[in-house]
Amino acid sequence: MDIATVNALPYEDFVNLLGNVVEKCPIITAAVWSGRPFSNLTALEAAFSEFIDTLPESGKEGVLRCHPDLAGRDLQGGTLTHESQEEQTGAGMDALTSAEASRVTRLNEEYKERFGFPFVICARLNDKATVLRHLSERRHSERAQERARGIEEVKKICRLRLRALVRDDAQSKL
Amino acid sequence: MDIATVNALPYEDFVNLLGNVVEKCPIITAAVWSGRPFSNLTALEAAFSEFIDTLPESGKEGVLRCHPDLAGRDLQGGTLTHESQEEQTGAGMDALTSAEASRVTRLNEEYKERFGFPFVICARLNDKATVLRHLSERRHSERAQERARGIEEVKKICRLRLRALVRDDAQSKL
Repeated sequence: MDIATVNALPYEDFVNLLGNVVEKCPIITAAVWSGRPFSNLTALEAAFSEFIDTLPESGKEGVLRCHPDLAGRDLQGGTLTHESQEEQTGAGMDALTSAEASRVTRLNEEYKERFGFPFVICARLNDKATVLRHLSERRHSERAQERARGIEEVKKICRLRLRALVRDDAQSKL
Repeated sequence: MDIATVNALPYEDFVNLLGNVVEKCPIITAAVWSGRPFSNLTALEAAFSEFIDTLPESGKEGVLRCHPDLAGRDLQGGTLTHESQEEQTGAGMDALTSAEASRVTRLNEEYKERFGFPFVICARLNDKATVLRHLSERRHSERAQERARGIEEVKKICRLRLRALVRDDAQSKL
């Protein structure tokens, strides 16, 4: 799909096609539609980031809370969204040893207990080892710092999900 | 469920139980969790309304765009959320004559074409006749006025959905 096609979509199709680029937050996609037309993929990506930035801190925490745990119950139970499923398995989250799995569960719980939102990381830009390292390190952060860090990861996930759906015309002209 | 039970819920349970009080916007529920504890049902209702008020105009339009058409494809296809299904059938939207159904479809399309978001009304506080009357009248409004009107209806829907889930302790003491 190129950007001209995206710009011509009625809001219902826009939300159906792009509604999960921010995990379980179709309202963000539905809001971004107000800003069309987008001159290119970069502008579309920026519109998502900018909308997220307008949210109050509680809203940013809300975005994080719509994300599943890494290597959590949803992965084991097959109830992840299609996108999360691909990202988590791509990073090897479905292939943890039982010791690693127990450790991730314990660290996820500790993280959620401390911050009131889940650990979010762009799995596509990480592997099992770096996910575990970041989870272990970030659980000691301050809440505000960790909220901002999580939101930066949400934006990276959003960007990669958008790029899987919308062609970058700048690149396709090369 | 009483308010003390609500206040004790971890965010995951809070979102699972109350995640659709604003249609397809679990992020709003997830954000509202940040404001706990709530002194009573009225305070919980106010937290939802206040969060919606913090959204930029595009975000309010996003909320409206997460709503299905009244008597639309989702009702006919059985793909409404549980809550919308109950509300739309309660208002008789599943029992339109074929002439009424054609008229609603035409007016819905006209409304969406004009405003870029769907006609939203609290079906529980209306019946077939008043829904049709409001739809017919409101399609001639101004966009900003209609956005504000739709959001007021979203808040009414939210309040009634909350009251179906959380006991009003003030009343139960009477």
